[in-house]
Order: sequence, then C-alpha cells, then structure tokens
Amino acid sequence: MKQGLQVGNQSLSFQKPVYIMSSACICGPKEGEGPLKDTFDEIVEDATLGKESWEEGESEMMRRTVALAIRKAKIKTEDVRYLFAGDLLGQLIATTFGLKDFEIPLFGLYGACSTMGEALSLGAMTINAGYADNVVSVASSHFASAEKQFRFPLEYGNQRPMSSTWTVTGCGAFVLSDKEGDAMITGITTGKVVDYGVKDSSNMGACMAPAAADVIYHHLKDFDCQPSEYDKIVTGDLGIVGKEILCKLMLDQGYDISKVHMDCGMEIYDDPEQDTHAGGSGCGCSAVTLAGKLMQELKDGTLNKILFVPTGALMSTVSYNEGQSVPGIAHAVVIEAKR
Amino acid sequence: MKQGLQVGNQSLSFQKPVYIMSSACICGPKEGEGPLKDTFDEIVEDATLGKESWEEGESEMMRRTVALAIRKAKIKTEDVRYLFAGDLLGQLIATTFGLKDFEIPLFGLYGACSTMGEALSLGAMTINAGYADNVVSVASSHFASAEKQFRFPLEYGNQRPMSSTWTVTGCGAFVLSDKEGDAMITGITTGKVVDYGVKDSSNMGACMAPAAADVIYHHLKDFDCQPSEYDKIVTGDLGIVGKEILCKLMLDQGYDISKVHMDCGMEIYDDPEQDTHAGGSGCGCSAVTLAGKLMQELKDGTLNKILFVPTGALMSTVSYNEGQSVPGIAHAVVIEAKR
Repeated sequence: MKQGLQVGNQSLSFQKPVYIMSSACICGPKEGEGPLKDTFDEIVEDATLGKESWEEGESEMMRRTVALAIRKAKIKTEDVRYLFAGDLLGQLIATTFGLKDFEIPLFGLYGACSTMGEALSLGAMTINAGYADNVVSVASSHFASAEKQFRFPLEYGNQRPMSSTWTVTGCGAFVLSDKEGDAMITGITTGKVVDYGVKDSSNMGACMAPAAADVIYHHLKDFDCQPSEYDKIVTGDLGIVGKEILCKLMLDQGYDISKVHMDCGMEIYDDPEQDTHAGGSGCGCSAVTLAGKLMQELKDGTLNKILFVPTGALMSTVSYNEGQSVPGIAHAVVIEAKR
Repeated sequence: MKQGLQVGNQSLSFQKPVYIMSSACICGPKEGEGPLKDTFDEIVEDATLGKESWEEGESEMMRRTVALAIRKAKIKTEDVRYLFAGDLLGQLIATTFGLKDFEIPLFGLYGACSTMGEALSLGAMTINAGYADNVVSVASSHFASAEKQFRFPLEYGNQRPMSSTWTVTGCGAFVLSDKEGDAMITGITTGKVVDYGVKDSSNMGACMAPAAADVIYHHLKDFDCQPSEYDKIVTGDLGIVGKEILCKLMLDQGYDISKVHMDCGMEIYDDPEQDTHAGGSGCGCSAVTLAGKLMQELKDGTLNKILFVPTGALMSTVSYNEGQSVPGIAHAVVIEAKR
C-alpha cells in the first residue's frame, strides 16, 4: 500500500492509525429475526421505541445507540468533541432530535445510504489531524420513516418489484479515537457523484453499482493494490441486482473482486423467507453490519483487513417526480484489525 | 487569542492559516434589486436559469457558482480535491445535480441555513491538515424550491406573518487553499443543536437565536476574547426578531455584541420596500453576503477580522406536522484579512 498523506487522486492514508474504540448497533424486530441477529447489541421489539411516530422512534434509536457506543468506549459524553451524523429523512430530522440532548458539536451529513462511510471518513480525518481526542460517527435508517419519506404510505400496501430493497431499521455508531482500540481506520477514498442515467428508484442497486465500482477502482489505483489484499470488500446495500453489476463493472476494469466481495444488504435478511426481495438497504444496513458482525470478526481474528464501501442513491421524491435520474455515491474506508 | 490546535471545548485555532483563494456568488432577480446588488458576481434574470424546474434552476446556479469560484482562483477543476456542499432541499438534490458533472469527491452536508459555516469549517480543517491543496466549500438556497419544500405552493399565495423571512435565491462558493489568497480562516467554533422549544416555523429568528448565542458565547470563552476583537460578528439570517433575541441573550451572559453585530438577513433586502418582512434567510443568504460584500471589505481594508456565524433552523414539514419544536444550530468561522 502506498505511503503518505494524500494518496493518488482521491485517497488519504493515515500513517498514525485512527482507532475504533467501540461500536454499537441497535436494530428493529425484522432485522432481529435475520441471520445477523446475534451480532446486534439490542433488538427493539417495537419499531416506534415507545414514541408517538416512526421519526421519533428513529431519533430515539440513534440516541440510544450513541449513548451505548460512548459507554462501551468507557469514556464520558463530554469527552466526545464532535458528532458526525446523518440519516435518510429530509432535513436530517432523525439526527437533529436524536442527538440534541448530547450537547456535542455536530456536523450533519447527507450521503444517502453512503452516510456511514462519509461519517467514518470525516471522523477519521478529524482524529488523525489532532482536532479531537474522541469523536462519534453514526448513521441510521428506519423502514417505516423511509417508506413514508420516499415511497408510499405503509397503509396503502403497494406491491414491491423484485429489484427493490427493504430499508433496514437500525443504527450503527462508532467511537473513533487516538487511543488504542478494537480496530483501526488506516485509509479512505472519497467518492464522487456517479450518474449512469438510471431512473428506476425501485432498482437502487443498479443506480449505486457504478458509484461503488468507481470508488473501489480509484481506491485500488490510488493505493496501487489488488482486491486480494482485502479479506473482504464490503458494499452497503447493492442487493442481488447491484452486486452482479458491480462485479461485472470491476471485471471490465481488470479487477476480479468476486472472491472477496460481500454486500451488507445481502447478509442482513434471510431471503426468500423474510420476503425482502433484492436485500436490505438504508444507511443503517451497512452501519449495523459493520458495528456488529464485521467488528466482531475484526476483533476475533477472522478478518484482518477490509474495505468498507457504503453506497448511496441520491434522489428525493421531488427529483424523481421531476424525471431526474438517480445518481449514486460511495465512500471507501480501510479498516484493519489491531496490530 | 489563545494558541494551539484544540482550543477550549469546541474550537480549533489554525496556526497555519487556511486561505480563501477566491469567492463567487450568483443571485436571483429579487436579490439583484436589493442593497447588495453591486457585490454579486452575477444576477440571473430568470430564477429557473432556463431549466424546467426551480430545483434544476438551483442546481444550475450552484454549478455556475462553483465553476466561477474555480476560475477566479485560477486553478483547474482537477486541482480541487474535495467539495463540501449542501442546500436546503430534502436529500440535497440541488447539490447532487448541481455538482455531479465536476467529478470531484463530495462530502454532502446538511446544517440547514448554517451549512455555509459547516462547509467552510470542514474545508478549512481539511486544508490545514494537509489532506488537500484546494477544496471548494459551497451552499445554496432558492426561494421557490424552498417554499415548495417547506411551506405552501407559490400559486396558493398565502399570507406571511411579519416575523417570517424570505429565502434568498443565491449561491456562494469559496476555494480554500494552502496557498496565499484574498483572506484567511484562522479558527472555528462548531455548534451544537440548541432547542428552546420554539415551535413557530414562521419565526425562525427566534428558533435560531439561542444557537447563535451559544456558539458565539463558547467562541469568546474558548478563545478568551471580547466581542470588540472583531470588526463584525456576522450572523446568517436571524432577521429583525432574532437579532434582538441574540443581543439580549449575549448581554445576559455578560457580552455586549450590539456594536459589532450584523445579520446578513437584514442586509440583503431593502425593507419595507421589498416586502420581505423580517429579512432574508436560507443557506444562500449568508453565503452570498460573505462571498460578495464581506470578502470585498476584507480585501479593501474596511474589515480586518470578522466572526462569520451562519445560523440554521432544524426542521422539516414532517417534524413540524408531528408537533416537534424547531431547534437551531450555528457554526462560527474566524475570517481575517490577509496579513
């Protein structure tokens, strides 16, 4: 892997690694019935978390997850200098109401379902530069609040095409620190908006795969390395359709990633039993898979080095109704087991 | 002013200043009739900028403003390593479609009308750490797309209370660099979500003033300085109502900022002639006032040092309709004339 701070055209390499001191994840009932259930810190039985709306429920989930991550890192709330946070809802209301009681300076982020990668990237940049001793990076999504935001009222009971994905009700939070922790972030590659002109918002895998391919390609070029350097290259929520497109696009560029590729959206539900179609999606999908399963495997030695690449589809109901395409974006983060 | 990287609880001081190489601002027709008209780079006559929707118009405005800022900095597009960008629309669609053709790695940000402060803060942190040689920080808002997003269809012609503000159609963009430029960023204080429980989204000044007071107070404490150290303390879009609250809240804390306080929302329109009521608002309000008037005054010696504090009201139609309050957030950036 290349050395130096700025690497290639769009990557950074952190000589002094940024440590992940702790991770926490809380999920909804459907995720709690899926194959990753034993890796979650908490599974809520009621997806409103006792609140009066789905949105307030999502905020409460984020509040609890951040509090848990801070507890697990054995630090105090006032030891956290910045929050890097986002969700899928218009104007980030899950984040605003979920994090306001912490009274920690906040950078609100929107990268659609790539937000966990964006939050980890900016958090790691902040720690590496000495701007903070500890920060929290967090992202959430919620099936019911997202359906209301992007698609149809749940009561309407619309049919979903087989290419559609199921928004994960879940939140993942990470305490990043300059002190030694469970795993470490050693590099990032920041993604561009990539638009192949796909207009089908029920086929987000196809919308996002080109952005994932672009950032993985540039990552491998910038660091002058091969896919085999990674135990896993982990995309966020491409699903079955997007995974196929990604592997093909990478092969066209001369890289066979099929042996090491894993998509969080294809891990989190048990299909066809759970009837989620192409897989899971949402910021929470990659966030909880990393915070749970992948962090466990980095700690127990199953994994040594992964490239975490959450993927986002950039659209709103307004852009969709106005006939715009659905561009994608993805951000790559190199995560290694503690040396 | 205190020295060192981390200053107090929520500030950073940049020993090696981050330079503003160039700024650019493009505004709509109403802003082009206001008192700041001579400070804008371009005034568009048609607020759709020849596109088919307000949203596409806002994207085009952002695209043109960023291109102009890059041109004015005399660098090439490929010399810009990161974009830090945001707007007010759900899922940041103005940003997505406005910036996609640049093919520059993008960090999407949402801080409501404080976004220009957030983008300058993260941009300055990135330059100061050596993560990039040049970045662009940009924020926009658009009266018509914002009214559609947050309030009533324009065709409905609803009456606006006197406490309401008028969303600025405008975009401001800044090239930040490690090479000497027109002005410099020497410190930042990052804001927290502050919620006084105000629920009136037509009185955003009252919602945001406590957040502005909080970040200005912590800035003065962190840097151990007095308001008189600044030629101006510039808030984003508090308007007449919010300005009064801010000055009173600061006085309660022992700081009289009334002599140096200026609010961009009260500068941009000529009231009551332009009938905007409490003033201008939107990310674009503070962005174009800084990119135009304030940058000119920093260059010509009228101003030596300012504290730029854009203010955001954190709400969506969903949170409003569900009876939530409208919390505020504000981010402070110290900008000085070139030494």
